[in-house]
Amino acid sequence: MNNWQASGVITITTDFGHKGPFAAVMQGAIVKRFPTARIIDLAHDIPAHWPPEAGFWLSRSYSYFPTGTVHIAIVDPGVGTERDIVVALKDGHLFMAPDNGLLAPLLEVADKVGKLNEDATASIGIGEPSLTFHGRDIFAPIAADLAAGKIVFADIASETDSWAPGWIDDPQTANGRVSGIVVTVDAFGNLITNIDASLIERLEKPVVNIAGHMIEMKPTYGRVKPGEYLALINSFGVLEIARSEESAAKGLGCERGAPVVVKDNPVI
Amino acid sequence: MNNWQASGVITITTDFGHKGPFAAVMQGAIVKRFPTARIIDLAHDIPAHWPPEAGFWLSRSYSYFPTGTVHIAIVDPGVGTERDIVVALKDGHLFMAPDNGLLAPLLEVADKVGKLNEDATASIGIGEPSLTFHGRDIFAPIAADLAAGKIVFADIASETDSWAPGWIDDPQTANGRVSGIVVTVDAFGNLITNIDASLIERLEKPVVNIAGHMIEMKPTYGRVKPGEYLALINSFGVLEIARSEESAAKGLGCERGAPVVVKDNPVI
Amino acid sequence: MNNWQASGVITITTDFGHKGPFAAVMQGAIVKRFPTARIIDLAHDIPAHWPPEAGFWLSRSYSYFPTGTVHIAIVDPGVGTERDIVVALKDGHLFMAPDNGLLAPLLEVADKVGKLNEDATASIGIGEPSLTFHGRDIFAPIAADLAAGKIVFADIASETDSWAPGWIDDPQTANGRVSGIVVTVDAFGNLITNIDASLIERLEKPVVNIAGHMIEMKPTYGRVKPGEYLALINSFGVLEIARSEESAAKGLGCERGAPVVVKDNPVI
Repeated sequence: MNNWQASGVITITTDFGHKGPFAAVMQGAIVKRFPTARIIDLAHDIPAHWPPEAGFWLSRSYSYFPTGTVHIAIVDPGVGTERDIVVALKDGHLFMAPDNGLLAPLLEVADKVGKLNEDATASIGIGEPSLTFHGRDIFAPIAADLAAGKIVFADIASETDSWAPGWIDDPQTANGRVSGIVVTVDAFGNLITNIDASLIERLEKPVVNIAGHMIEMKPTYGRVKPGEYLALINSFGVLEIARSEESAAKGLGCERGAPVVVKDNPVI
Repeated sequence: MNNWQASGVITITTDFGHKGPFAAVMQGAIVKRFPTARIIDLAHDIPAHWPPEAGFWLSRSYSYFPTGTVHIAIVDPGVGTERDIVVALKDGHLFMAPDNGLLAPLLEVADKVGKLNEDATASIGIGEPSLTFHGRDIFAPIAADLAAGKIVFADIASETDSWAPGWIDDPQTANGRVSGIVVTVDAFGNLITNIDASLIERLEKPVVNIAGHMIEMKPTYGRVKPGEYLALINSFGVLEIARSEESAAKGLGCERGAPVVVKDNPVI
Repeated sequence: MNNWQASGVITITTDFGHKGPFAAVMQGAIVKRFPTARIIDLAHDIPAHWPPEAGFWLSRSYSYFPTGTVHIAIVDPGVGTERDIVVALKDGHLFMAPDNGLLAPLLEVADKVGKLNEDATASIGIGEPSLTFHGRDIFAPIAADLAAGKIVFADIASETDSWAPGWIDDPQTANGRVSGIVVTVDAFGNLITNIDASLIERLEKPVVNIAGHMIEMKPTYGRVKPGEYLALINSFGVLEIARSEESAAKGLGCERGAPVVVKDNPVI
């Protein structure tokens, strides 16, 4: 198991929202098997049936949790059909999600990737799961046993080198231009892109183009006047477009999926 | 106390929403008396002043938590008036809620039902509660002591065989038809009914009628094309009407309260 | 440290909302340093960039948590600029927030107030924080060490008697009238003011004036018919205007900031 040592911590990411007991019964199912589990809700407001936002946040967030954390993510329109479940190890963290492209950004760089064995739940003494709530009936109990150190990757998964592709193209770079998209919008209306800081740092004087606006890079929000736009490398290491004390999403009329181009040294 | 053995776990269900510190101060009040309590928020987005949804979810969810869990539910427009508080034991779980019909589905099948004694809080050393926040001032400290095993049912409640009736009629069955209603709509727009799987299983070829549509039963969401309707027995054992990768609630123009009829062997 | 004894409990208050992993990575950063921390989310739906609601709720809520709790609040439009971070002790609770007026109601009555030292994070072995997420990079690790009892106030803060002023004027009293404002609206549409019970108790027959309505005081919501307005001293010790089983905010067309005047003995 290389560098895996269970910390007892589990994070949960879903598109279940906060209505009803869906996330709570996953916690119940974990606690039933592992009473001292530390469970942290990473996010439950992933847009319904849109896996890539879950994968984006997991790949950008996992390092802030203790090594040995089990991260489960359920955005799963194909629940109960033939889709597989993927399991991955990366930097001493363990990830589990439907094999629908959700985890693609992590799988490409993982230390080990596997598919959950068909008899995985049976092997830990769990009865037949429902066809519509694998989060509760498969992910939760397996995460509990992994986090408790009762089982390891090899007990429940078989290594693989194939998995469903991601939903979002990697940013393109050419001729001093970087092209990407808005992956998600936060509660402030900040537009968060898939463009990594490293792609921007190569440019001499980067300027961000979005929705017909040319926006300059600043270190932080308070460096422009309220109402003015700015772009910055945010605290998760990606390009973000913001509007000081207001919503850039509303101001620019942009949503998830909006194209973003960073140009070097343009004349503003 | 028959089969009661405290597990240290408490679930909280309310209509407080997520604005303000209301759910958090309940957690604080619990932790003050029982520092190692495991507290799980079951749901806080119950529609304001509509107790039956809380009771529906509790009755369908409790078995996914450890035996010995204390479940408290506060949807309580009558707080501070003469309404009682009911306490119930069922399958080794303990439930507490205002006596306003919230818990009716559980009380009808409970192993034991009681009313909270008027001196219950005084008996555990708690001062006069506020008139408007019994969740914090009565439910939280009593749940803490119950979950910690410091007190049991008989210390704080007196058995009763009368309580406020439920808000929703049980489904009706006659001539190969089952009639019920939509109890709640989840974040995906799935319409969740009060029709138990057992009522459907008696039918040979059940077809669901709702809002002028006739909808066939399927095992899971992914068995129809995106945008198509289906009905299924969901992971909580009740009939649900869904639309693959879309919102059935929006598509059918249905909300909580909508009538649902299941007919056997109709000609579609 | 006078009366400070760490309880291991941390509360978090922010305007991050529930979209994305922002609150969760703060929890991760805490657990990394203090694996047995008890973390309670006080509120994450503070209106964006409006610090006074966070301070209002903290000052009215902290006493419901165990003595020795660390309360951190991040509503911080000036993150990454020259603004300070304030630290305060009050009744054995410890508070930390940006010095932007958020904590003003508490600082005025605190037992001790300090500014976070510039080398505070370095002194506990933490690298350079990001410019845009001090909640994760400064508040979380320092709160973890304070809650774990590894460090105390004097290790990371220097006492001060100056800080940013509050955003909301204290209520005015004159000639049998008390004037204040609506500070926040809860999920039920109840209008919660900054007028303390003590200011009302001096009046013989207080009547509340808001939005052209004169509203009588009652002990609790259920003492008027559904749809009727009432005013009461709520469970946090302040004046609240409510509408039984409905939303006073909608009914009166009032929001945060609305003026409220309480008159003594008017003729209704």
